[in-house]
Order: sequence, then structure tokens, then C-alpha cells
Amino acid sequence: MARTRVHNFFVSLDGYSAGETITLDKPIGGAERLFQHFDGRVIEGVHAVDDPITLDRALTSTWGQGIGAEIMGRGKFGPQTGPWTDEEWRGWWGDEPPFRTPVVVLTHHARESISFDNGTSFHFVDATPADALERARDLAGGKDVRIGGGASTVRQFLQADLIDFMHLVTVPIVLGRGVSIWDGLEEVQDRFAIESTTTKSGLVHHFWNRER
Amino acid sequence: MARTRVHNFFVSLDGYSAGETITLDKPIGGAERLFQHFDGRVIEGVHAVDDPITLDRALTSTWGQGIGAEIMGRGKFGPQTGPWTDEEWRGWWGDEPPFRTPVVVLTHHARESISFDNGTSFHFVDATPADALERARDLAGGKDVRIGGGASTVRQFLQADLIDFMHLVTVPIVLGRGVSIWDGLEEVQDRFAIESTTTKSGLVHHFWNRER
Ligand SMILES: NC(=O)c1ccc[n+]([C@@H]2O[C@H](COP(=O)([O-])OP(=O)(O)OC[C@H]3O[C@@H](n4cnc5c(N)ncnc54)[C@H](OP(=O)(O)O)[C@@H]3O)[C@@H](O)[C@H]2O)c1
Ligand SMILES: NC(=O)c1ccc[n+]([C@@H]2O[C@H](COP(=O)([O-])OP(=O)(O)OC[C@H]3O[C@@H](n4cnc5c(N)ncnc54)[C@H](OP(=O)(O)O)[C@@H]3O)[C@@H](O)[C@H]2O)c1
Repeated sequence: MARTRVHNFFVSLDGYSAGETITLDKPIGGAERLFQHFDGRVIEGVHAVDDPITLDRALTSTWGQGIGAEIMGRGKFGPQTGPWTDEEWRGWWGDEPPFRTPVVVLTHHARESISFDNGTSFHFVDATPADALERARDLAGGKDVRIGGGASTVRQFLQADLIDFMHLVTVPIVLGRGVSIWDGLEEVQDRFAIESTTTKSGLVHHFWNRER
Repeated sequence: MARTRVHNFFVSLDGYSAGETITLDKPIGGAERLFQHFDGRVIEGVHAVDDPITLDRALTSTWGQGIGAEIMGRGKFGPQTGPWTDEEWRGWWGDEPPFRTPVVVLTHHARESISFDNGTSFHFVDATPADALERARDLAGGKDVRIGGGASTVRQFLQADLIDFMHLVTVPIVLGRGVSIWDGLEEVQDRFAIESTTTKSGLVHHFWNRER
């Protein structure tokens, strides 16, 4: 059975995963330090880049393994809110989005799909988490579906009990404000078997596997 | 530049990686408990098997990423010593060896190569570590080469300073006797940047990256 997985989801010591106001210059809404130990070049496997293979790298590189599609919220795709005004803009990542699979973008505002040469495509969908997951499974060709964030998207999928695996990373910084995945999720940990470990960088990696 | 990597190399608390006498029934020479937390089904990636994705699993699954060939000692291929008497025997793994790449088997006793449908082939080579590595690089098609063990093979490659990356796993057992990679390698750690982390199973994972 294909799984629904969250990978490399960074959380501050005070529980935030993004700043409150996202702009074109500030894709994490001012909380860019959450990604200070993250190297986007290594998430496809430990061989992709000729840099030391650290524990952080081995753990974050599971991101792409066996993934056939991603689901993300509109806030991860871009800073726009309300009806789309500039459809020329094709996401933060330029011509080479790292996903290399179909991506379902949750939004209340319909828009044409976008495709890239490297296998990435964005499909804009207004749906409940369960229906969005069904759509993503169709696109994933039997492989696993990644829930890519942001915080309010991961929160919805946890609330609907649709997450099988979650790799959270605690970053040793205090943000003071921002968007959290935890609002309204008291006791969510009881549905999971959880283990954690530390690395030299000061990150703490948490692996949550849903109990069967 | 392609690397030379050791993965999932299990060591007891007293420093041993195999028992002293390997037989057909005892491929690890009586030290089979070294592999008690190892699941050979998961080393190709975290998606391969529908079991919980543990930290141990994420770390051991880097084994196959970007690998184009393996080098192993004859003691990992089978229990025979001296000239080959039974060439019908094709290694411990039956018709589906997990390697799925060419494998250079170090031996002083020549023998015909063997091929399997799943991409694995064994090539029996009498050579120094440096020459064996050149041969493996030719077979690896630009990808990394894994040094697969056993202990005396890893030791030779460390002595020749040919290892770029090594993932050692300390298993919390005391064997009392056996084969060690450490003989004659005093201070070898000085050539590497080393980090380690613990997991719920009691294993300690060590990542050694050669200093440039
Ligand atoms: N910390 C991390 O590891 C991490 C990971 C990924 C992303 N991020 C960051 O997180 C931030 C975004 O997070 P966020 O929580 O603000 O936003 P988000 O989850 O990315 O997107 C939320 C928006 O998506 C749309 N949406 C969500 N669910 C929907 C549904 N069921 N049906 C229809 N539309 C739906 C709504 O937009 P509309 O109503 O406007 O259409 C909603 O405002 C960004 O800064 C991103 O870079 C952080
Ligand atoms: N703990 C772990 O993670 C781990 C990993 C892999 C394997 N193992 C275990 O380790 C054991 C084998 O280790 P080992 O140290 O006894 O043996 P090994 O390294 O597998 O093989 C040693 C043999 O290979 C041949 N050889 C090695 N270097 C050579 C060279 N440069 N030129 C020509 N021939 C060469 C020699 O055989 P001949 O002279 O007879 O030809 C030598 O006796 C097995 O039990 C295996 O299952 C453990």
C-alpha cells in the first residue's frame, strides 16, 4: 500500500515552521534560518553531490525515495493570495523545480496546470485533504505521496489522520512568532511511534510512524 | 569524482566484525548477532518495504545510492579456502544476490566470472587494493564503488588510504573473539571527520568522511 509521507519539515524550538507574512523576497516569511542546515542539492540521494556524507544528509536524502507525487499548499508555491493576477509566475524554483513528479497545489483559486521539462508539473486543486490525496495517488503511479507543506497543509492532513510517516527536524532557534503545524492537534503524538536522534549540527531529527 | 564507500559495517563493542571460522551454515562465523537489527530488504531505499521507516532504516538504506560496483573479499562470497573445488556454488545469496551491480571478489585463486539476471555479476580478481579499485571503477560506469567487506578487505583499503566514506555501526554485543578491521590501524581516525548518533535499537551509527 502506498504511503503518505512528510519529509524534512523544519520546526523552531518554539514550534513554528514559517513566518507569518510570505513575500517574493522572503519565501519562508522571515524564518529563513529554519533552513540554515538544509542543502537542497542532496535530497535526491547521498551520491548526488561530492560533499561529505553527513548524518543530516543521509536523513534528509530519503525525501525523494519512492515518491510519485507531492501535495503542497499554495503558500509553498508562492506568495500570492486571492485570485491569481500573474499567471506568468511559475513558482519559487525557476525552470528546474526539484520535485520531478506531479505536484498537487491546494488552492481555492483555479488555474491552468504548468509543466516543466524535468518531470515536475503543478496541478491547482480545490479539495479536502482526502480528495486531494486521491488525486495525488492517481498521479503517483503506485508510488508514495509526499505532503510537502507548508504548516497549515501538514496540519490539515494530520487532523484528517492521513499521514503515515513524518520526518520533523527541530532547529535550535527561537522565532517568537509564525505559523505552526500544532494548532488544534493536542495529543496527536499518541497515534504515532516516535523516535529521535541528534546530529553534530545541533538539529534533532524525529521520525513519526503511524501505529497500525 | 567517484568515491569509495563502506556501508553498514557492523562492529561489536570489543571491535570484531566476524567470527574466526566461516562455514556454509555460519556465514558470519558464529557472530550472526552482529546483524540482529539489520533488515536486508530495506537497503535499496526507504520505500522498498511497507514497514515503519525507522532511523536505522533511513541510515542503512543509503547502501545502494549511486553505487556502480562492489569489491568484496572471498570470505564474504563464501566459506571456501584454497583452490576452488565446487564452482557450482554461486555465493550465499542464491539466484538473487542483492548487489545488482558488478562485484569484484578478491582471491588468490582464479575462477570464471558469474552473472545473474538481476544485474549482479561476480569477477574473481587477484590484485592489490589500488588495482582492484581501478578494475571496479571501470565496471562502475562513473558511479561510486562500495567496499563490501569482510574485515580484512576493509582493513586493506583503509591501510592503503583508499576509503572516502565509511558507515560503521556499533552493535551492543560482546563477542570475545573474531576478525577485526582495526589490527595495525592505530590512529587511522586522524584522517577522517567523524560524527556519530544513537538510535532506539541501541545501535550507534558512525559516519567517517575522509578529510580533503
Ligand atoms: N518549515 C518547513 O519545513 C516548511 C516546509 C514547507 C513550506 N514551508 C513554508 O511554509 C509557508 C507556507 O505555509 P502556510 O501554512 O502559510 O501555507 P500553505 O499550507 O503552503 O498554503 C495554505 C494555502 O493553501 C490553500 N489551501 C490549503 N488547504 C486548502 C484546501 N484544503 N482547499 C483549498 N485550498 C487550500 C489556501 O490558499 P488560498 O485560499 O489562497 O487558495 C491556503 O491559504 C511558506 O513560507 C513555505 O516556504 C516551510
Ligand atoms: N560485520 C560486517 O558488517 C561484515 C560485512 C561483510 C562481511 N562480513 C563477514 O566477514 C567475514 C569475512 O571477512 P574476512 O576478513 O574473514 O575475509 P574477506 O575480507 O571477506 O576475505 C579475505 C580473503 O579474500 C582474499 N583476498 C583478500 N584480499 C586479497 C588480495 N588483495 N588479493 C588476493 N586475494 C585477496 C583472500 O582469500 P584467498 O587467499 O583464499 O583467495 C583472503 O583470505 C564473513 O564472515 C562475512 O560474512 C561482515
